[in-house]
Amino acid sequence: MLLEKLNWRYATKKMDPSKAVPEDKVERIVEAARLAPTSSGLQPFEVFVVTNPEVRAKIREIAWNQAQVTDGSHLLVFAAWDNYTEDRINEMFDLVNEERQFTNEGWENYRKMLLSTYPARDAQVNFEHAARQAYIAFGMSIAQAAFEGVDATPMEGFDPAKLDEILGLREKGLRSVTILPLGYRQAEGDWLVNLKKVRRAREKFVTEVK
Amino acid sequence: MLLEKLNWRYATKKMDPSKAVPEDKVERIVEAARLAPTSSGLQPFEVFVVTNPEVRAKIREIAWNQAQVTDGSHLLVFAAWDNYTEDRINEMFDLVNEERQFTNEGWENYRKMLLSTYPARDAQVNFEHAARQAYIAFGMSIAQAAFEGVDATPMEGFDPAKLDEILGLREKGLRSVTILPLGYRQAEGDWLVNLKKVRRAREKFVTEVK
Repeated sequence: MLLEKLNWRYATKKMDPSKAVPEDKVERIVEAARLAPTSSGLQPFEVFVVTNPEVRAKIREIAWNQAQVTDGSHLLVFAAWDNYTEDRINEMFDLVNEERQFTNEGWENYRKMLLSTYPARDAQVNFEHAARQAYIAFGMSIAQAAFEGVDATPMEGFDPAKLDEILGLREKGLRSVTILPLGYRQAEGDWLVNLKKVRRAREKFVTEVK
Repeated sequence: MLLEKLNWRYATKKMDPSKAVPEDKVERIVEAARLAPTSSGLQPFEVFVVTNPEVRAKIREIAWNQAQVTDGSHLLVFAAWDNYTEDRINEMFDLVNEERQFTNEGWENYRKMLLSTYPARDAQVNFEHAARQAYIAFGMSIAQAAFEGVDATPMEGFDPAKLDEILGLREKGLRSVTILPLGYRQAEGDWLVNLKKVRRAREKFVTEVK
């Protein structure tokens, strides 16, 4: 069950550099992100799987020197579209038509509505919207890692502009939003591993409108 | 497995108004949101569970008249903090200390760092950051609904300012970001139920940096 897995996981503070996550597990963790729902099905983001040690060492330098970036075996980088463009919207609507092998008037009208609104908006507004969608996928990868028994550390603590430079994201029309080191906990060096998970009580989190 | 559930789910277009989701399932769907990881553990959002028919009828009016809002039995509303304040940050750090029954210098320094940076930032920047965290939880609820065999329709298509008014969110320092009707599909009226789920191919979604 998902709830058990969410209770099992925690933001791992120390990973064992001698243990690597098997590739099939990494694939399924990325697949969860690919299957995540997104607004209008646009999937306005990409995932980078960084294993190269030099690249990860550079990323660690601009991520508050957090050791999980290099102690883990894989680093996922979630990078959102910097803007919604006509080409990007059309590519997704064309793909849907191709995969479903028919066109539908309602769907085409919906495409026109998006084409007439999204590209005209400010790029920053569009990026913020795309980034939110990436967070849904980020969450799905975190959950899937837990199902795989893989430790992961959700991180926002890095310099996005510098990470964009290291990975050449801006040239691809992307901007980094979150990173997720994957690996296996090294319990003896991890101050958080044995501490209680704390969440606001249900009554301070949920309101019923009956 | 999560991947099977993500393949099973779809954005349900027609729900059966005669079927209600049992309360224990709704509780677990909300619990998944409560357990979601968030930046610095602040959980900067709340969830409203709306069952009141008049309130849902009003929400439907400002949500493009999407019938799932009233045909489903429950409507979840994800509302993010409108800003990060000293009180909100202290409340979460105090709760952590209380639950873990000790204080820790590193943790207290981290609290000071957040107190010296977050409240001074522009409220809109803070809201956008809080909203991103709410999307992680939104995704967890969508996934948990699938584990429960409950249909759900992730929705951004509504007027957030009007929803804030209907639920009195601004007075509580909250702003609506997404809604999630819960119910059971009525396949005969649902144009999407039998259509193929379409996602960009892995090679257009993932880049390996080896």
